[in-house]
Amino acid sequence: MAVESDRPLVVGRRMLGWAVEGIGEVGPGDDLAELCREPLLTHGGLAPWDVVVVTHKVVSKAEGRVRKLSGVVPSSTALAVANRVGQDPRMVEVILQESRAVIRAEPGVLVTETVQGLVCANSGVDRSNVGGGEEVTCLPLDPDASARRLRESWLEIASGGPLGVVITDTFGRPFREGAVNVAIGVAGMPAVSDHRGLSDELGYLLHASTIGTADEIAGIGELLMGKIDGIPLAVVRGFRWEGADSGAGALQRLPERDIFRR
Amino acid sequence: MAVESDRPLVVGRRMLGWAVEGIGEVGPGDDLAELCREPLLTHGGLAPWDVVVVTHKVVSKAEGRVRKLSGVVPSSTALAVANRVGQDPRMVEVILQESRAVIRAEPGVLVTETVQGLVCANSGVDRSNVGGGEEVTCLPLDPDASARRLRESWLEIASGGPLGVVITDTFGRPFREGAVNVAIGVAGMPAVSDHRGLSDELGYLLHASTIGTADEIAGIGELLMGKIDGIPLAVVRGFRWEGADSGAGALQRLPERDIFRR
Repeated sequence: MAVESDRPLVVGRRMLGWAVEGIGEVGPGDDLAELCREPLLTHGGLAPWDVVVVTHKVVSKAEGRVRKLSGVVPSSTALAVANRVGQDPRMVEVILQESRAVIRAEPGVLVTETVQGLVCANSGVDRSNVGGGEEVTCLPLDPDASARRLRESWLEIASGGPLGVVITDTFGRPFREGAVNVAIGVAGMPAVSDHRGLSDELGYLLHASTIGTADEIAGIGELLMGKIDGIPLAVVRGFRWEGADSGAGALQRLPERDIFRR
Repeated sequence: MAVESDRPLVVGRRMLGWAVEGIGEVGPGDDLAELCREPLLTHGGLAPWDVVVVTHKVVSKAEGRVRKLSGVVPSSTALAVANRVGQDPRMVEVILQESRAVIRAEPGVLVTETVQGLVCANSGVDRSNVGGGEEVTCLPLDPDASARRLRESWLEIASGGPLGVVITDTFGRPFREGAVNVAIGVAGMPAVSDHRGLSDELGYLLHASTIGTADEIAGIGELLMGKIDGIPLAVVRGFRWEGADSGAGALQRLPERDIFRR
């Protein structure tokens, strides 16, 4: 640390985060919590109040949420949507099966509300570049339940907790360029911090009264893991939360509250 | 750190962040860079590759971007919009003066494209709770220029850099509950990381090919500073960027590229 030697170091609020490498390949039926145990231990362990950030792709793979496009027969709806957006109709069929509403379908863009209640491109379905692009990965069916299971398995490493687990995906967003990591599954902590009715120290009414803290933690995970190195796990230390486990549903705006879905 | 004593600690990619307290009250004409110098030094100093995260409110105040509503005369447009959204017409007048387009105006919601090109609620204008709510704070007129000036002043503390500076505000967003910190001014680093054309280690085409890394760093700032403690400054250490200073404009989606503005 670049501290001048004659100055006292004031230690205030601080956070530390690190990437956890060494997980290796994950396949259907694998015990992801167990695969991560040794890497977690050799990368600093876990302490109470830690948050483990997990990229959804390894969760999806362990849960067998992988499909081969060769076995997919597109419906007439999928054919029509595929024609409009300019995508493989079999891919569109999977995207529609993973959705409960289409939000936008335009050339090059297919935004849906997923079966999990998320709003994102392509229902979060990722396409592989290998094997002729035949393999696609879908989001975990119940990411909060996946996060709860991982948390339960890792709790003992964190001396019984508190312990947060955040499962992430990378979402584009309206108005801003650059996708960001967001929390699609949350366990052990609230996904949203609520400051409603509070004022700041100068008496300004809080401009934004609820904060998507789990999304901000997901963002740290992205910065630590990077996009191309295949690191699926990171630990964030130093965040203190208040309130109970909400699940990631607290981050989902209900359609009737969303002026951009009308 | 909760590391079992017989296990080697694997040190991988890691980041550290801390809040910088002790800035005190900031007023019009203050030299913000100078006000922050001593607190920065006593809170760990700065090293090359650090990113300093600054909440926009102290930047706005130092730059005199504060207005009293008592001196504001609402136009007929402001009166009509105020009637629709249910806000003080003088506040709406300031919001419209700070905007170049209205994106949504509905009861309780006024989303604009600001003169800076940002899309957010109320043109980023914050209302004070003190003095009868007469004082409002506007966004810095050119947040990238503000970030560049701060960076220039702090560069010597960071041994000449590289040094990033990110000026933040807290924005709500479509589809998701909970506002998050975003980067409205950036200096010394790219605001967006570009992975276009790359595949991940398993050959998946990158699902999200540009990442809003400066927004993710802004989020760390929010987690460190909190909303009610009046801490305007944080340092993030351990992020390595590639590419040149882009300004926060790289995070602004052009209206013609934005399907949610059509």
